[in-house]
Amino acid sequence: MNEETARILLAHGNGGRLMRELIAGIFARHLGNPLLDTDADAVALPRLDGEIMVTTDGFTVQPLEFPGGDLGSLAVHGVVNDLAVAGAEPRYLTLSALIEEGLELPTLERLIASLADAARAAGVAVVAGDTKVVRRGEGGGLYLSVAGIGVKRAATLDLRRVQAGDAVLVSGPVGDHGIAVMLAREQFGLSGELRSDCASVLPLARAVWELPGLRFMRDPTRGGLATVCHEIARATGHTVVLTQASVPLRPEVVSVCEMLGYDPYYLACEGRIVAVTDASAAGELLERWRAVRGGEDAAIIGRIDEAGARVILETELGGRRVIDELEDDPLPRIC
Amino acid sequence: MNEETARILLAHGNGGRLMRELIAGIFARHLGNPLLDTDADAVALPRLDGEIMVTTDGFTVQPLEFPGGDLGSLAVHGVVNDLAVAGAEPRYLTLSALIEEGLELPTLERLIASLADAARAAGVAVVAGDTKVVRRGEGGGLYLSVAGIGVKRAATLDLRRVQAGDAVLVSGPVGDHGIAVMLAREQFGLSGELRSDCASVLPLARAVWELPGLRFMRDPTRGGLATVCHEIARATGHTVVLTQASVPLRPEVVSVCEMLGYDPYYLACEGRIVAVTDASAAGELLERWRAVRGGEDAAIIGRIDEAGARVILETELGGRRVIDELEDDPLPRIC
Repeated sequence: MNEETARILLAHGNGGRLMRELIAGIFARHLGNPLLDTDADAVALPRLDGEIMVTTDGFTVQPLEFPGGDLGSLAVHGVVNDLAVAGAEPRYLTLSALIEEGLELPTLERLIASLADAARAAGVAVVAGDTKVVRRGEGGGLYLSVAGIGVKRAATLDLRRVQAGDAVLVSGPVGDHGIAVMLAREQFGLSGELRSDCASVLPLARAVWELPGLRFMRDPTRGGLATVCHEIARATGHTVVLTQASVPLRPEVVSVCEMLGYDPYYLACEGRIVAVTDASAAGELLERWRAVRGGEDAAIIGRIDEAGARVILETELGGRRVIDELEDDPLPRIC
Repeated sequence: MNEETARILLAHGNGGRLMRELIAGIFARHLGNPLLDTDADAVALPRLDGEIMVTTDGFTVQPLEFPGGDLGSLAVHGVVNDLAVAGAEPRYLTLSALIEEGLELPTLERLIASLADAARAAGVAVVAGDTKVVRRGEGGGLYLSVAGIGVKRAATLDLRRVQAGDAVLVSGPVGDHGIAVMLAREQFGLSGELRSDCASVLPLARAVWELPGLRFMRDPTRGGLATVCHEIARATGHTVVLTQASVPLRPEVVSVCEMLGYDPYYLACEGRIVAVTDASAAGELLERWRAVRGGEDAAIIGRIDEAGARVILETELGGRRVIDELEDDPLPRIC
């Protein structure tokens, strides 16, 4: 071993000695649990008591580490959150890592250790994994794909259950992740105190799974709040009306958006929930969320109107503005 | 639309209109099944009757299409095979696609259609998916990560059940995938008739799941036959003795290996099984495999010896050669 930082070599992916040592020394060491067997092609799960729910997500965020999170914690939260908003208690994850030749081993280890911490905190175990190494210039340092297996705990939550008259809520300020990651990219020449909201929304979801009148939840990641509203509008044929004054936004997000011309409603969140509920249950949902850590700034931000399949913003000056479906990509590799 | 071939844009990954159209037009169209709901964050599975087994694998093969297969079929077979050799009937897959900006849409569609065909043929449904787009120069055209869920149907098969005196078998010629992919890379200036063995081994595995005396199976992918033998030697402390004359090899694989100095025992297969069985059951296993399509060339290729934790080749000339654990990578992005 010379004095330079140890880096990933192509031979770390070939099935031989270096790959075995990489898996044992980093992946198995941090992710180890009684079910994970790196010598097995597949592992048997303990009996799951209830209806099984599954999801998958790929993670490509750049930079790999940013204020408030990193690729490893993001990968766990992204999948845990997809299960949580669908009404499932997350239990098991699988992990596929695509590593670029040249990635520094200490960086890889920090990211996998962070992933392991996030998994422990969310109560999920990584039960199967795979690593591949691609040549320099054919990757982005590290990409992670995670599948999640959970057990259904809520009544069926579905976009198509949303009705005219329902209330729309969000669990906290929107756009933090998008702006935090953007500021962490050197090319913008900006920096700030803002941290990504990257977090598990499981406690927020659990607090309302049993709430009568809850129709639908989604975590507004890529495409942000606006995109979730468009999904609701398209699936139901109703119009989503947001009231500008009530959508929580951090001042730093507002400033950066004004400076760079972004619309915060399209920016990714990684630790928020958008919920739609019967209007009569909105107060109870809000109260429950505000009692959970991370839900202090939850707000009722809009309603579902009969009229057709659009997203409308009622501005603070009393106007109405159509929010279009997202076209151009403001920020690639945001999640 | 201009006359140039349509290609993946960054905006195909942003959560907005183009992403929705890409998912509907290619992924949902080819992979559609009653469980897949591209509007949902997670899907509920029908009740699984038996012990659940899971696995995951990432796929990065280059070129994306090669004689005998492509990235799409490879991704299904890789995961189906991992479940099959572990004794599980594959049922459900999740799919995470990392697409590079600039990939031609017709290429993407061919690969996903091929993936869908392979899934149908293996009797598995893709129930959840995710797509991400990375910038040009940060990917390899298309990378796929697949997780698989199956139901255990065989007695527990485990590396650690292997005993001295056991027989080692392989279901067909080794190294076809490695050489076929290598020849498909232009830089080698070679071409040939050889096709990858890329295929589902599920029929071969099913034929022997119930066989008394079966200890362990593995599909020899990265690192090939030699690497599986090393895994056995390391896990058991026994020596794996292969008899050179009995390891099936296609003449094209032998020629290319001689020309380029590769050892075929380290080359990837994508449609073979290595099995270890009680010696008394080896004949029966061989007979069952030879009766299955794809198992015609199955052979008993070696035995497990008491002595310590090595892999030995008994050569055709009567000598004994140690087969070392793989060090350098002969072929990156082979699977």
